[in-house]
Amino acid sequence: MATPPLHPDIAHLSWLLGTWAGTGSGEYPTIKSFDYNEEISFGHVGKPFLAYTQKTRHAETGLPLHAEAGYIRPVGTDRVEFQVVQPSGISESYEGIVQSTEEAIVISLETVSVTTTATAKDVSAVRRVMTFDPGAQVLSYKMAMAAVGEEMTHHLSANLFPTT
Amino acid sequence: MATPPLHPDIAHLSWLLGTWAGTGSGEYPTIKSFDYNEEISFGHVGKPFLAYTQKTRHAETGLPLHAEAGYIRPVGTDRVEFQVVQPSGISESYEGIVQSTEEAIVISLETVSVTTTATAKDVSAVRRVMTFDPGAQVLSYKMAMAAVGEEMTHHLSANLFPTT
Repeated sequence: MATPPLHPDIAHLSWLLGTWAGTGSGEYPTIKSFDYNEEISFGHVGKPFLAYTQKTRHAETGLPLHAEAGYIRPVGTDRVEFQVVQPSGISESYEGIVQSTEEAIVISLETVSVTTTATAKDVSAVRRVMTFDPGAQVLSYKMAMAAVGEEMTHHLSANLFPTT
Repeated sequence: MATPPLHPDIAHLSWLLGTWAGTGSGEYPTIKSFDYNEEISFGHVGKPFLAYTQKTRHAETGLPLHAEAGYIRPVGTDRVEFQVVQPSGISESYEGIVQSTEEAIVISLETVSVTTTATAKDVSAVRRVMTFDPGAQVLSYKMAMAAVGEEMTHHLSANLFPTT
């Protein structure tokens, strides 16, 4: 049951593989700001995609806050498709661009569609930008969304570090 | 970091919690039939949803076949919302009905929407029926889909047993 070797189509994203942990903060016009502890993982099974899981806990109480899961599918080396599902009844389907310089690798994602269940809050569009600084070995992200009647507005930012 | 107690809104689905494993078979007009080994898990974090993960391996080679992840959100005790994402670029959003008799608990799910990425195969609708036989302690499911130009057609069936 060993994991097959890395698929060549995801070789350029292999720096994502493993588990990352750190802290983040959230804000939105309709809610009280909050801090959180986060852990995310990227895995592979020898196929041309990365499996993604994420969970956060409240920075003070330690109670579970958010979780999500999804998959990143590279399209060549400079584009990706990313689909993620959240327990709040929200599924997001993104297209993204991968840009690499000496200083950073940046994945800029924008939703092509957001599907919400009948009981979920309204979310119409989401942007995520993930930035990896290979020197500092830090994976940062920012997330903005247009939701519950608000225009596209900053919501989350976090800095994560390799745990393995 | 202990798990909080079960949320009362998912108490009637607590029989799903844990890990299930077994075997299944797949067929579709456009592919060669195949057998697989499967493991699925349902977990909770004290909130009113169940987290779902699934993976299958080829019955003969042991190589990874399929995987998916998602969340079940109960709506009262007789309805559910279920969203699932697949590495093949397919996200499914279901509504379902929960029916309980002395013989079985049946969850009948039908997609409200299917979102496919630009590089994914065409899937327009999916039906899943999960049946739990409390006497035999077996969780069975059947899955049918309308995809790649085919009408709604049987695709998968499996029988899974508690591993824990």
